[in-house]
Amino acid sequence: MVGAGQLARMTQQAAIALGVDLRVLAGARDESAAKVIVDTRLGDYRDLADLREFAKGCDAVTFDHEHVPTEHIRALIAEGHSVHPGADALVHAQDKAAMRERLTAIGVPCPAWTRVSALADVTEFADRHGWPVVLKAVRGGYDGRGVWVCSTPDEAREALATGVALLAEAFVPFERELAVLVARSPHGQGVSYPVVETVQQDGICVEVIAPAPDLSGEDAATAQNIALTIARALGVTGLLAVEMFATSTGLVVNELAMRPHNSGHWTIEGARTSQFEQHLRAVLNLPLGSPSLAAPVVVMANLLGGPDPDVYSRYEHVMANDPGIKIHFYGKDVRPGRKIGHVTALGTDLDEVRARAHHAVTCLRGPLNA
Amino acid sequence: MVGAGQLARMTQQAAIALGVDLRVLAGARDESAAKVIVDTRLGDYRDLADLREFAKGCDAVTFDHEHVPTEHIRALIAEGHSVHPGADALVHAQDKAAMRERLTAIGVPCPAWTRVSALADVTEFADRHGWPVVLKAVRGGYDGRGVWVCSTPDEAREALATGVALLAEAFVPFERELAVLVARSPHGQGVSYPVVETVQQDGICVEVIAPAPDLSGEDAATAQNIALTIARALGVTGLLAVEMFATSTGLVVNELAMRPHNSGHWTIEGARTSQFEQHLRAVLNLPLGSPSLAAPVVVMANLLGGPDPDVYSRYEHVMANDPGIKIHFYGKDVRPGRKIGHVTALGTDLDEVRARAHHAVTCLRGPLNA
Repeated sequence: MVGAGQLARMTQQAAIALGVDLRVLAGARDESAAKVIVDTRLGDYRDLADLREFAKGCDAVTFDHEHVPTEHIRALIAEGHSVHPGADALVHAQDKAAMRERLTAIGVPCPAWTRVSALADVTEFADRHGWPVVLKAVRGGYDGRGVWVCSTPDEAREALATGVALLAEAFVPFERELAVLVARSPHGQGVSYPVVETVQQDGICVEVIAPAPDLSGEDAATAQNIALTIARALGVTGLLAVEMFATSTGLVVNELAMRPHNSGHWTIEGARTSQFEQHLRAVLNLPLGSPSLAAPVVVMANLLGGPDPDVYSRYEHVMANDPGIKIHFYGKDVRPGRKIGHVTALGTDLDEVRARAHHAVTCLRGPLNA
Repeated sequence: MVGAGQLARMTQQAAIALGVDLRVLAGARDESAAKVIVDTRLGDYRDLADLREFAKGCDAVTFDHEHVPTEHIRALIAEGHSVHPGADALVHAQDKAAMRERLTAIGVPCPAWTRVSALADVTEFADRHGWPVVLKAVRGGYDGRGVWVCSTPDEAREALATGVALLAEAFVPFERELAVLVARSPHGQGVSYPVVETVQQDGICVEVIAPAPDLSGEDAATAQNIALTIARALGVTGLLAVEMFATSTGLVVNELAMRPHNSGHWTIEGARTSQFEQHLRAVLNLPLGSPSLAAPVVVMANLLGGPDPDVYSRYEHVMANDPGIKIHFYGKDVRPGRKIGHVTALGTDLDEVRARAHHAVTCLRGPLNA
């Protein structure tokens, strides 16, 4: 697995059970996954020589992020490596313009969009679709970075001033956000997890509710079909997370990710097969595991760092308060606003389960003034 | 954790989630846990200098087996280390005579027993309690090793000829075997997992059923009380597994273990808190986690090696046949009869869940003639 963040770290838990020897390519020994994986290789994921050395002897190569240059992935595949997802699929998670073009071509509902390079492009787009206009970096954005919701030409000018390639999207007046996580194996098997609702604050996912409350069976099937259709059409191998807007007129696809995804962390305890085990099974071309729920209601809440870095000292209270809460700490240095862990609560009553998860992350984050 | 077998390996999965930095003392780099734990130290658990070096800087020291000499544990504690379980508790899991003396003293039901050193001791014991007589090595036995069920004086003579210290126990005509896993923390909190039924073949546990079928609430509470009483009386910190015989006249305690135990592997998916997480919480003096069941029926079946060492090639069939089966492979060399992994099945119908677990281990073991 190229990249040694928390996704690789949690993949190691699944690899241990399956007896899969997991190797990671890390930038430094103190990265989240490097702390828990013996076969950690140091190197630069942007360097083809490092990638080649890393891939030697691996049965399969996969990723914990989308930042490996597409041409390097093509080179590894040309040299005989089994890389999942492949470059032709992954480019759609790396390049938002390529993603929009392809989804539009296969009939998947997207917001109105266009490439923009000057203010005139943005104002012309706004003339047709109205303000606000959402400007997005074509490459490299995550967790709200690389996204500008612009209400005026002046705000658009600021985004354009960054100099990165941008596309404009119509602002979608959504009722809520949903996500569908699917897995697809090289031999074409596909499975979909239940549709979840995601709650974002400042562009960062703070809460995931599984299954999405009050979603009809028909709407859930529609959302799952969209995700499975994208996985097949794009030739995805491994996991695909599809983030969607639920609007009064239907679903609109927002973003794609081709790896274990924050919207799937609930599956560690909440589904029969965790997304991390599922990803390993998919990239190793093993039959996929059951995505069924392990409890009627599962809520995952992200733990963002607060000013006081000592999270561990707050375990006592959180564990005593709720013996059923599941804490996941990524072993990362605590910085305000940084994703440093998550908690999962399981139960039967939605309000109660949400309150438990919320209480746990609030306590773990600690005092707001250190 | 001193020892780097599969118990330490599975403890690492829990340590990753909690953000606990787990260090193990291994005999060799290729031991089960050493393959998945970065902070692996090589050394001899029988050597006090190695133990001292290992314990330096650890918040707590615990064990994946019971073979560390009691006097070394006392030395570490005297030098200020936090060791769980402590020597005064652990000796009862190391020395079966000490265990029988103590359990008898606190009124826990045990089989009739005595120390024996010559054939005359055994025949005198048999005169009072009948044949067969069960001879057990006072120290060092496991998985049926160090236990001789003797039907005649000649068979007892063979066991005596081994030269190890022995005790004799009356053979218990049991209806079935039960096990209770409890955790106790240094500040005295205790929790008990549901009582399970264990099935042994040739002295090795092959199957664990949670909860024990057709056990009345009263009998379950009695069994849990026995285990919690032992944990408190012996001052156990960490996990205590109590293996019991269910007889027509009540429960009789067979064996104790003070560490994660084979009879608790089902808790990884089958309980809200796995025994490995529970052990970490207990030895770190954190509040204990909920032991409640995650499914109505959970069955764990041990995977014993067959003549064909290639287990992995059989994953495809097993996973395709049952997408909900959970495979745990310990990364150990496959040898016939060796515990190399386990599977867990969860569901609602006992017969169906048992059949799924049995099918999976039978397939994974492979052909009986390689």
